[in-house]
Amino acid sequence: MTETTNPQVLLARRPAGEPVPEDFRLAEAPVPVPGPGEVLVRNRFLSLDPYMRGRMNEAKSYAPPVAIGAVMGGRCVGQVVSSAVEGFAPGQWVAGGEGWQHFSAVPAAALRLLDPDAAPPSAFLGVLGMPGTTAWVGTTEIAPVKPGETFVVSAASGAVGSVAGQIAREMGARVVGIAGGAAKCAFVTAELGFDACLDHRAPGFPEALAAACPDGVDVYFENVGGAVQRAVWPLLNPFARVAVCGLVSEYSAEPPPPGPNLREMMGKRLTLRGFIVGDHPRAAAEWRDTGARWLRDGRLKYREDVVHGLSRAPEAFLGLLAGRNFGKLVVALD
Amino acid sequence: MTETTNPQVLLARRPAGEPVPEDFRLAEAPVPVPGPGEVLVRNRFLSLDPYMRGRMNEAKSYAPPVAIGAVMGGRCVGQVVSSAVEGFAPGQWVAGGEGWQHFSAVPAAALRLLDPDAAPPSAFLGVLGMPGTTAWVGTTEIAPVKPGETFVVSAASGAVGSVAGQIAREMGARVVGIAGGAAKCAFVTAELGFDACLDHRAPGFPEALAAACPDGVDVYFENVGGAVQRAVWPLLNPFARVAVCGLVSEYSAEPPPPGPNLREMMGKRLTLRGFIVGDHPRAAAEWRDTGARWLRDGRLKYREDVVHGLSRAPEAFLGLLAGRNFGKLVVALD
Repeated sequence: MTETTNPQVLLARRPAGEPVPEDFRLAEAPVPVPGPGEVLVRNRFLSLDPYMRGRMNEAKSYAPPVAIGAVMGGRCVGQVVSSAVEGFAPGQWVAGGEGWQHFSAVPAAALRLLDPDAAPPSAFLGVLGMPGTTAWVGTTEIAPVKPGETFVVSAASGAVGSVAGQIAREMGARVVGIAGGAAKCAFVTAELGFDACLDHRAPGFPEALAAACPDGVDVYFENVGGAVQRAVWPLLNPFARVAVCGLVSEYSAEPPPPGPNLREMMGKRLTLRGFIVGDHPRAAAEWRDTGARWLRDGRLKYREDVVHGLSRAPEAFLGLLAGRNFGKLVVALD
Repeated sequence: MTETTNPQVLLARRPAGEPVPEDFRLAEAPVPVPGPGEVLVRNRFLSLDPYMRGRMNEAKSYAPPVAIGAVMGGRCVGQVVSSAVEGFAPGQWVAGGEGWQHFSAVPAAALRLLDPDAAPPSAFLGVLGMPGTTAWVGTTEIAPVKPGETFVVSAASGAVGSVAGQIAREMGARVVGIAGGAAKCAFVTAELGFDACLDHRAPGFPEALAAACPDGVDVYFENVGGAVQRAVWPLLNPFARVAVCGLVSEYSAEPPPPGPNLREMMGKRLTLRGFIVGDHPRAAAEWRDTGARWLRDGRLKYREDVVHGLSRAPEAFLGLLAGRNFGKLVVALD
């Protein structure tokens, strides 16, 4: 059956604090007509990621905000519907679809054919995609960890954290995760093979974290901020490195909550670095090769949280900000 | 006239918040008798530096605290009184004297003969000593600045800041200082040759700083923290680097005041690094050579604030914490 319209999710208005469902609007547009050099793609999986919260704001950031009434931005994998461009044939799986919508007309140069032998297509949105590459950049370039050091990562069962911890383990570190709830923590230790995982919602979390890091913390891969950050901070060792990758617990707080006092930065000679994966263009291919190999070898595990149907994307995204997803959140665009 | 006692300043008690004169105590000890391999030094100049505030606390730091009743620690330059060690003769000027006191018995290995042609002896406590080396490490290793970038330094007329700004200028940066009061600012621009200097005590300081940095801030050399830090933060450019060298306005605050929110660290990909000059052992000689050459060439200027008499050291140190000194603070041990 030929699909005759392009369902979309638009940004209806800018959120005031925590986003709510009314900030989004479902719409239908005509299926786009590809221009010269473009390929029509039927998106099959849409990636939902915390960075999208920032794009909903007016404030200038490293990327322009989504305009009111525009399609929410996001990475998709999908299949070629029609193509006048050599090298792309109907049915092929590609990365490079864009937006919370079923169809994208994409310049061929922005598309990449997926390797069906490496992993299922949706994995290129998570473990082998932008989140996995983010973990790779953070652990190898931004805050490198040495064998025997203690590596702590928050949102440890999430798309980035789960990969970051496994890379650190492969680099010889002792790896301690922080996640929300007993089920996630059990997954992180039993399935991902972290040395320990602490539930930040459990009473006595700061003490439990300290007990799990008897030699202190050498690298902290920061995904959440807030109370979790405050628990990690006193445990940082001299010369510790902090990769500031995300602060998902703080994105909707206005004014921004205070950060850590910098006094300890001197005594402990800390290095804090914020980073964005897009600044490291060679890392994506590098990680795809490495990650695909580790997947084949069984050294790298991942878990997806798949929501079915574009109309459920807003609700799923709100759940992501609240930590209700369990694994890499993707929307199957059935 | 032979001096028969060793005047000293002891730590009388640990400060509660801001130190007060009663936290110190004047005392007299016998002139120390040098042991085997030691040299007796009559200290002539004592360096007073903000890091000493940290040593007055109980809290563990990178260096052990001064014990109650012990001599306050500090670097001195002075003259050899007596020596059984080859290479040291009475009257020679040396660096390596230790403590708020007139006499030190120092292992010869910890002494360094001063080059009387390079600069006056007291300069080896400031522009060519630990503060100058700190500026060198901060600007060349911790937060390197590139030609054409904007470099901002707080406490710009002080021992470290004045050198940091001049090094940055030599590296081709546009240099903006921040200092307390019009006289210091005038010195910083007219004598040190900074492009601009802002008085953080003047009304409208944040706006004036922004106006003085029309292209934003690429490197911030942080010496003070607090309100000055809050004014600089919004001006930081993407990929800006912050060398956290000192936070003199915050040392006595308990609990430590909040630091900057880390949200901007990601969008702006900031790098913050705390550092301690002692971790860079080769930098001291490197900077002594470079700094001495620049002094001879007239490219490097410095100013000393000399207080006469050991008994005035506590009062002078309290003034340093409050920004009442003007230039590198040294005590002439007359």
